[in-house]
Amino acid sequence: MKTSRRLIDQALERALDAGGEGGRVFVSVDADGAIRAAENADRVIAAGLLTSPLCGLPVSVKDLFDVAGQVTTAGSVVLRGRPPAVHDSTVVARLKHAGAIIIGRTNMTEFAYSGVGLNPHFGTPANPWDRQRRRIPGGSSSGAAVSVSDGMCFAALGSDTGGSVRIPAALCGLVGFKPTQRRIPRDGVFPLSFTLDSVGPIARSVACCALVDSVLAGEKPVPLVAADLRSKRFAVPPDYFLDGLDQDVAANFDAALKRLSDAGATLESIPFPELKVVSEIAAAGGISAPEAFAYHRRLGMDFAAYDNHVAERIMQGKAVTASGYLDMLEARECLIRTFRERFGHCDAMLCPTVPIIAPEMETLGRDAAEFWRVNGLLLRNPSVANFLDACALTVPSHRSGDAPTGLMLIGHHLADRDLLAAGLAVEQVLNSHH
Amino acid sequence: MKTSRRLIDQALERALDAGGEGGRVFVSVDADGAIRAAENADRVIAAGLLTSPLCGLPVSVKDLFDVAGQVTTAGSVVLRGRPPAVHDSTVVARLKHAGAIIIGRTNMTEFAYSGVGLNPHFGTPANPWDRQRRRIPGGSSSGAAVSVSDGMCFAALGSDTGGSVRIPAALCGLVGFKPTQRRIPRDGVFPLSFTLDSVGPIARSVACCALVDSVLAGEKPVPLVAADLRSKRFAVPPDYFLDGLDQDVAANFDAALKRLSDAGATLESIPFPELKVVSEIAAAGGISAPEAFAYHRRLGMDFAAYDNHVAERIMQGKAVTASGYLDMLEARECLIRTFRERFGHCDAMLCPTVPIIAPEMETLGRDAAEFWRVNGLLLRNPSVANFLDACALTVPSHRSGDAPTGLMLIGHHLADRDLLAAGLAVEQVLNSHH
Repeated sequence: MKTSRRLIDQALERALDAGGEGGRVFVSVDADGAIRAAENADRVIAAGLLTSPLCGLPVSVKDLFDVAGQVTTAGSVVLRGRPPAVHDSTVVARLKHAGAIIIGRTNMTEFAYSGVGLNPHFGTPANPWDRQRRRIPGGSSSGAAVSVSDGMCFAALGSDTGGSVRIPAALCGLVGFKPTQRRIPRDGVFPLSFTLDSVGPIARSVACCALVDSVLAGEKPVPLVAADLRSKRFAVPPDYFLDGLDQDVAANFDAALKRLSDAGATLESIPFPELKVVSEIAAAGGISAPEAFAYHRRLGMDFAAYDNHVAERIMQGKAVTASGYLDMLEARECLIRTFRERFGHCDAMLCPTVPIIAPEMETLGRDAAEFWRVNGLLLRNPSVANFLDACALTVPSHRSGDAPTGLMLIGHHLADRDLLAAGLAVEQVLNSHH
Repeated sequence: MKTSRRLIDQALERALDAGGEGGRVFVSVDADGAIRAAENADRVIAAGLLTSPLCGLPVSVKDLFDVAGQVTTAGSVVLRGRPPAVHDSTVVARLKHAGAIIIGRTNMTEFAYSGVGLNPHFGTPANPWDRQRRRIPGGSSSGAAVSVSDGMCFAALGSDTGGSVRIPAALCGLVGFKPTQRRIPRDGVFPLSFTLDSVGPIARSVACCALVDSVLAGEKPVPLVAADLRSKRFAVPPDYFLDGLDQDVAANFDAALKRLSDAGATLESIPFPELKVVSEIAAAGGISAPEAFAYHRRLGMDFAAYDNHVAERIMQGKAVTASGYLDMLEARECLIRTFRERFGHCDAMLCPTVPIIAPEMETLGRDAAEFWRVNGLLLRNPSVANFLDACALTVPSHRSGDAPTGLMLIGHHLADRDLLAAGLAVEQVLNSHH
């Protein structure tokens, strides 16, 4: 019984189907390598030596992770001439060690620098919902999300600086997890912001994300047990997160809160108006722009060959002063203290992952003002978790067939496994509804 | 037997002696508080409840540490109107808990921002050597060093961002220790550079510094055992540290190396030309200037009321860009890697603590160009340890009665106790010479 080989063949068939999104989901597919790894996995399994629950399962890897022998291009054309990576990034090495089969490198917003997911160099995979209208997948881990939604892998490895895992997961109807930054090593990962970058998975369920998360963190994978919602207290800030919600998002969020309350969870409305500092800072380019600018300048690359939108955001970092940058870091420390003091008695904050459903690509590609407006909206809620140095999880909150929306749980620094256990319980309550 | 009371009375007598340096060593003396604390310590000692080897001993505290009930002015006049500190800084609380008696707040370069030690607001205590010519004490912990040299305390609590503990210790013929930054808490300490600031002691001997260090770090004070020099390997970079040495400094350094070698230590000449980046970065204001500028701007203080030299250095931080600042942090990481790779097999690097003996105050007060030249020279060698996130110790290397000079040992990150044990052995070898 060649279990892994069969799974990999299926995944590759979907990835390479000329009529599917595969050509835009992947910047490269390693069919030969994946087949060899699958055959090896099947031998291991047949010998009764299953190394982990991931053994033999296909995973995709965002184009910013080093995989030995492959060129890391971070969704860009300017890095194409780089030598192949000599070593696996630690997270890729951990996935391989757990037996996961890496089938390809997924497309992304160039250098991970927008939440929309458009890529002018490699094309943009369409959202799995309402595919005829070609809606955005969300980004920056655009290919990652569609590789999961379209059955090209079991889970996708992504990165999240302001929502890049959770935005596409929410817009594509999937689960996405942004771990606390320091739990997951970032060596061999092309950086956007060393202060805010996190590495995390997209998959179909909270349990799948939890499994991948434990492998990424170098922890022993143990089955996740759902929390008892009757012992959980969730904070629902009535401000900031809830501005300008689409009808679908608002309705699904209200319905989700009602179901959680009915299931025995305690919901507490706690204002958090200080969050506006996150948007104010983001409007000026945020912490990411100067960090990205400094890094890209050191690489000495040709900004003219970048996606215009990306170059524009990176160049915002050029004019930032050191003292302005340090003031942002100070504002962040201050907000982290407020979060701890005001929300420490709650298990998580709840909010809609993003305030809108996925818009059509075409409009955003044509209209720069609309692009920036949507980008700001998409990043607004998820980026709070990165700013707070917290962990965060998005679970689907829509009915099957409707426009995908996500419910986000933002948990405390390093309380990742507690958040996942709560998220599993939340997912069960929301699924029973669908 | 009122041991502590007697010690405190002696210390206070020296501190308050109108013919001595006390008026320039201290910005405030808490005679009543010290006497009360000493009487309490004597009761504790009489009851057989000695809490630590520091119990009942007088210590001085640099004017930038919070002591509950006292105003922290950081050697400045602009902070005089501040409310008194509500809490002790953690390091002061640990000293008190160990039974140390705080006799006063020591004078310093305003905001700790120069290695010379001049303070135009409170005057400058003279170096204990060749006192008629009123040489600089070194800084920024100027009063700290003279409080020890003049018998006003057993040990002084200082801070060290680029040498502020080790420079005055070396110039005044004392031992100074800059611990690895993260070992000693910095809450309640007025910051200069949150990246580089460290807290450490000045005392008469390595053993005294080690005792205070263990209290500051919250570790159990255990007697320090001298390392066996025959098992020690010291690196002596032939470049950078040795440029432009005074005759006295060069002769004492050579003699010290010879004695260490004779005592069985292995000395290895290992070039470290990359260190020039430390001076290059310092010339542009370094990491400290933008961090200090951002902090002082947030406090909203009147720069016109600052010591000109200090205001000038802080204002250097205004024009620094965020990307320039981030490039400095990156250069630092790079140098730290080089240090680990090239010097990891050695127990410490050796160099003269500062390349010159203490010049006369008067010249420096008059001639700004000379002030900056001397300041740069004084900081050049010590600041390497802060840049490397290392620990470092200065021990006297001169003959008694001669101009004081220091031998510096720069140890590895968190290898503080090993460095102190090596330093104790080095001190014994150098003392036997005097």
